[in-house]
Amino acid sequence: MEGEETKAFPMKGGDGPYSYAKNSHYQKTFVDAVKAMIDEAIADKLDIKHFSTTSSPFRIADFGCSVGPNSLNSMKNIVEAIEIKYHSEGLSLKIPEFQLFFNDHSSNDFNTLFASFPPDRPYFIAGVPGSFHGRLFPKASLHFVHSSYSLNWLSKVPKEVFDKNSSAWNKGKIHYPTSKIEVVEAYSTQFVRDMESFLLARAQELVFGGLMTLIIPGLADGFPISKSFTTMLDLVVGSCLMDMTKMGLVSEDKVDSFNFPIYNPYLQEMEKLIARNKSFSIVRLEVVDRGQGNASTPSVEAATMGLRAVTEEIIKEHFGSEIIDELFDRVSKKMKEFPHLLDISKNATQIFVVLKREDYDP
Amino acid sequence: MEGEETKAFPMKGGDGPYSYAKNSHYQKTFVDAVKAMIDEAIADKLDIKHFSTTSSPFRIADFGCSVGPNSLNSMKNIVEAIEIKYHSEGLSLKIPEFQLFFNDHSSNDFNTLFASFPPDRPYFIAGVPGSFHGRLFPKASLHFVHSSYSLNWLSKVPKEVFDKNSSAWNKGKIHYPTSKIEVVEAYSTQFVRDMESFLLARAQELVFGGLMTLIIPGLADGFPISKSFTTMLDLVVGSCLMDMTKMGLVSEDKVDSFNFPIYNPYLQEMEKLIARNKSFSIVRLEVVDRGQGNASTPSVEAATMGLRAVTEEIIKEHFGSEIIDELFDRVSKKMKEFPHLLDISKNATQIFVVLKREDYDP
Repeated sequence: MEGEETKAFPMKGGDGPYSYAKNSHYQKTFVDAVKAMIDEAIADKLDIKHFSTTSSPFRIADFGCSVGPNSLNSMKNIVEAIEIKYHSEGLSLKIPEFQLFFNDHSSNDFNTLFASFPPDRPYFIAGVPGSFHGRLFPKASLHFVHSSYSLNWLSKVPKEVFDKNSSAWNKGKIHYPTSKIEVVEAYSTQFVRDMESFLLARAQELVFGGLMTLIIPGLADGFPISKSFTTMLDLVVGSCLMDMTKMGLVSEDKVDSFNFPIYNPYLQEMEKLIARNKSFSIVRLEVVDRGQGNASTPSVEAATMGLRAVTEEIIKEHFGSEIIDELFDRVSKKMKEFPHLLDISKNATQIFVVLKREDYDP
Repeated sequence: MEGEETKAFPMKGGDGPYSYAKNSHYQKTFVDAVKAMIDEAIADKLDIKHFSTTSSPFRIADFGCSVGPNSLNSMKNIVEAIEIKYHSEGLSLKIPEFQLFFNDHSSNDFNTLFASFPPDRPYFIAGVPGSFHGRLFPKASLHFVHSSYSLNWLSKVPKEVFDKNSSAWNKGKIHYPTSKIEVVEAYSTQFVRDMESFLLARAQELVFGGLMTLIIPGLADGFPISKSFTTMLDLVVGSCLMDMTKMGLVSEDKVDSFNFPIYNPYLQEMEKLIARNKSFSIVRLEVVDRGQGNASTPSVEAATMGLRAVTEEIIKEHFGSEIIDELFDRVSKKMKEFPHLLDISKNATQIFVVLKREDYDP
């Protein structure tokens, strides 16, 4: 049911020192910060009486689960919040059985993910391989959808940025934040297209009244992207790649044919594209600051490990694995040399969204 | 929901020359032979009108899917037979969406399994890791259960066979077929226990009216087990291990502490334990001969590859990988030396079972 023609960029698998599983603390900080907000959405907006007319289990899916512990932790939190909701509604409602679905591309390391599940678990689990830009579940078969740090990954880099004849050619850069407006727009258009296909598929899979919580690294309207974390990809990783080009360690063509398929939307962009879908009402939509502005500046080592965990696989796929150690040595040195980059890395805001599947079809 | 305390003996993963994926032709012959019987059971016994009162998808699960193509092929055949059934009932019944669940131990190579699914598929898929001797799905959430060549794997070797003080001590042997009656009974008791926990869990997971098809290597009542394929494990693999013991290549203790956790039931045993469960009615229960007696004797190479694909992982786990090549060289030579063993390997009958979940609880 899913074409899988979209590109997969798995996080670093396994559980070695550079794996996503061992280096996703940075994402975890955020997940913890929004836990209370998800709990609140479930307490206030989840219409369990509607679901409980049938004896079917409560089905929850995480889209873009990767292999780290964050996905399972988020899912467990959601289950607990729903159980509390059932308890609060009194004894007349029997708590359903929970079935948790973990989705990611079929190239995701599901073996590592499955090995990480505790043997005695009070819920049923399943892994669902495939691109979430297409259908992955039967109609109206999910009650709750979650996705965290996944929708910022584009299904592909917009092809104009590689086209010498296009005004959106992104010569000498590997990401859009400091590029000309045409490049930014090409990225933005691709993001809107991806979000639209995601929402269209989920609208069919969610039952009426079902909730969806999304966490996407993104920006408050008006915040300069040049001061946001996402700029690090070009300012640090990109700049180190260019240094390696100059030293003949990487060919210029190789760098020109590479761009990160990552986009960080502004709040208003999100609001507009959700409204266009018409199947969902917006329960909550806001920018959440990392640790409410109290976050300390990360160490160079932590910042390097974080960048490496997220970008290693995609860089390896394009440039080959032999450049990785050299590249991230340089990334580390670059941040030591320009400590203000570490301050930029603090500006990693996220957009938190709660949507409700409304009882009508577009 | 599942303890996972039971032991996992995965088939050889990946798709290398000795992988299960490449060496499961032998099983496939059987799967093809019973396809017509499964089609018939669906055509005659599946009460789709009962299911179609709800708009829910049709959910099918394969328990013990491994990584080879046989699981997906069986599932596709089942889907097709159900679609034909819907068509034959006339236009009033809308064909549901299909959701296929692939279960095996969490140590199964799900990454290889997922990579083998065609990108454009007219059904939804999910992988479910965990032991099928416990619950893996919500109550009444499956409409069709399938399991092929899996229930012959015991959750563990009965511990008496390793106990010097037990009358069931299996000294000098690594399987039960040519052992004394106490050993055979210990194996049989373990099989009954495993089947009971399997049936108990599936009874809860299957909807009333749901069907279950099981294919288990097994024997017609009265057929001498010493003439059946399963004897090869001891007569060939076991005997080669004993030869290696005598040459000091493997320690005697190592062999004494090893037994294959495999059991091939007689038809009557199956009938009795199913009847005891009370949740299922027997739609069909019979012994099916491989190729209806027309099978040709396999080549030594094919027989060796087949034995290796099924036993390599478990032998490796106990004896270490360094003995594998030597052992299967000897297996091959042994069969060349005693060609009658190849004739025994033809006697690989299976028990084919169709059960229906009845509308009452025990």
